Parts: sequence; C-alpha cells; structure tokens
Amino acid sequence: MPRTGAKDEPRRSEKWKARRDAIVDTSARVFAQRGYHATGLVELCAANELGKGAFYHYIGSKEELLAAIHDRVMDEVMLGADRVAQAGGSPSAQLAMLGDELLDVIFRYPDDVWVFLDEFRALTGERADRFRVRRREYEQRVEAVLRAGIKSGEFRKVDPRLTALAFLGMHNYTYLWLKVDGRLSARDIAKPFADIFIRGIAK
Amino acid sequence: MPRTGAKDEPRRSEKWKARRDAIVDTSARVFAQRGYHATGLVELCAANELGKGAFYHYIGSKEELLAAIHDRVMDEVMLGADRVAQAGGSPSAQLAMLGDELLDVIFRYPDDVWVFLDEFRALTGERADRFRVRRREYEQRVEAVLRAGIKSGEFRKVDPRLTALAFLGMHNYTYLWLKVDGRLSARDIAKPFADIFIRGIAK
Repeated sequence: MPRTGAKDEPRRSEKWKARRDAIVDTSARVFAQRGYHATGLVELCAANELGKGAFYHYIGSKEELLAAIHDRVMDEVMLGADRVAQAGGSPSAQLAMLGDELLDVIFRYPDDVWVFLDEFRALTGERADRFRVRRREYEQRVEAVLRAGIKSGEFRKVDPRLTALAFLGMHNYTYLWLKVDGRLSARDIAKPFADIFIRGIAK
Repeated sequence: MPRTGAKDEPRRSEKWKARRDAIVDTSARVFAQRGYHATGLVELCAANELGKGAFYHYIGSKEELLAAIHDRVMDEVMLGADRVAQAGGSPSAQLAMLGDELLDVIFRYPDDVWVFLDEFRALTGERADRFRVRRREYEQRVEAVLRAGIKSGEFRKVDPRLTALAFLGMHNYTYLWLKVDGRLSARDIAKPFADIFIRGIAK
C-alpha cells in the first residue's frame, strides 16, 4: 500500500513495515473503543504486546500513530477514487462507484475510519495541515464527477461543493451505525444510497 | 424550554435555571473547542467565572453537564419535529420542513450540536440509554414521514430506516463544515439538500 506519510516513516524493512501496520490497526481498535485522548501508552503497549521501548521502535509518538491511522484511511479512499477514474463511464456510474468504494473502506476498516472521522481534531500543526489537504483532494474527486455530469447535461446545475458535502455526509455518517447494524453489507447500503443521490441530482 | 432531563434537575427557581442554561451553553463552547475528555473542572469553572462550589451548585458532575447539552439539542430538535407535525402538508413538504428545522438547530447551537454528535460516547449507563431512546424517537419521526409518503404513492418503496439514516447523515454531517464555511445560512443548505433528497425518493 503506498503511503504518503513518508515524513513519519524513515526507510525500513518490509518486516518492520508489516509489524508497524499491524500496530496501527490494533491501536485503531483501542482508540475506537476508548477514544484517542483517554488511551494512554500503557494501554497501547498492552494491546500490541510490546514494551515501551519496542513500541517507540515502530511508532514515534501517540500522534504519529493517529496520523498513520489517517493515512491508512486516506490511502484506501484515494485508491478507490483512482480505480473509479480508471474504470471510466458516465458521471452517474462514476458517482455510484465512488459511493461503493467509500462504503467499502468504511466496512473494511471500521475502527480506522471511526478514529479518522472522530478524532481528526487531535492532529496538530503540520499533520493537521497535511490531512486537510488530503481530505480536500478526495472531495475534489467527487466535485469533478459532479461538474462533469453538469457539463454533460446528465445532472442538474447543482452547487458542486455543497452537493459533494451532501454526498460525503450521507456516506461517511454510516460509520456511526454500521457496526451496530451488522446485518447490512457495504453493497446493501451503496445501491439504495446511489439511487437516492443520482435521481436527486439528475436533470 | 421543556426538559426531559428531570432526573438530573430537582425543582429550582427560574433564576437558577437561567443561570444553569447559560453554564450549559458556555461549557458546550469549551467542550467543542477542547474536547470533552481534555476539558477539566478548572477550565469549566474559569470559562463560567465560577468557583468549584458554585459550579457544583448548578451542575452535579461533568457528565451531568454533557447530558444537559444533549438535552438542549434533543429538546430543540423535537420541538422542530413537533412544529412540522402540527404544520401538516404532504410528506415531501414535511420532509423538507424536517431538514429545515434540523439545520436550523445546527446553526443556532453549533457548539451544543458539535458536542452532541462528537461526544455522545462519553455518556454512560442510564444517561447513555436515555439519549439512545431520545435519538431513536426523532429518527422515528423521519421514518414516519417516509412511510406516509410511500403509502400515499408520493415516494418510491425505499427502506424507511436506511433512508432516514441517509437523510440524517446528509444533514447532521454539516456540523463539521458549517462553522468553517460561514457564508451559508441554514436555508441556503436546507433548500438544495431537500431538492436532492425529495427528488431522490420521488416515485
């Protein structure tokens, strides 16, 4: 998986990276359960079965861990957006695929997504700026599909920014109830959501 | 304002209640800025210009304060839903009004809503149960309008629960960017959102 969080990660072995990824996912689960601020190094070390020294060998700080969780989510979300762009098709089809890919990430990484959407304010300084840029990059992918549909006459003349935020709100907000409601798959939700949204902006 | 949080509030004078409401709103602003867990009694007392003893005269605990913020939001949201029910009209008109009322609460109480949506997991025991029930009551109002529209043939045969969650996600999620994007009013957002959603589920 490509990582843009290069700043946090010096060149290391594949084994080191795989272990670090596992620590990131385990820690995301702990943060999702207890909350970022309420979780201390002691709990993180216990959950990862690591001593304090070994933990710091993989992760420089609690906030670096939070940034790594953010990268995990953004990397997956952008990979999905890339697949959609490569697949081509009508703006309606592209928008449906974007929703599908987004819900798929929320389903596959529920804890990482929970932390991503719930704890982003805990990022500070350059890290906060970096993820503001990454989130904006993704939002612009959605806006580009909306603009293409408006241009082609497939969509009404909606406000692309506001409409992208409506689309993201509708999809992202599922992270709050997906885990509770375990009966539904990503596809069970993606299809009716796409139906509502695409009919809603169709010309 | 009617309060269902009677358990937390013994009978007191109007003056006491007004002061307590002001403490709730001021504290919501502090929680919205710093986060609930990161905020201590010292900061709450300083923000409210109260000593520890005086603070406890109005609020029994930090979690009671969080519950009072939740009641503030739920009271307003339910009052809005009551106004919609009293106003009557077609299911489409009702749904548009529900969105309008919801965004109005998010605009009028941005800090309380932020805390409500961001910190609800910090509520424990009976309080957590009580707000689960209150949130569900509101969701059922939305579902009832959807069912009425399906029954009258105005709406397609959508899943009322899933569609209500889509509607709420689209509207609630605005709390994350409304404060950043100060150019828009509640109505500026409510109208295009209603257009998307109602066209999206129209038969």
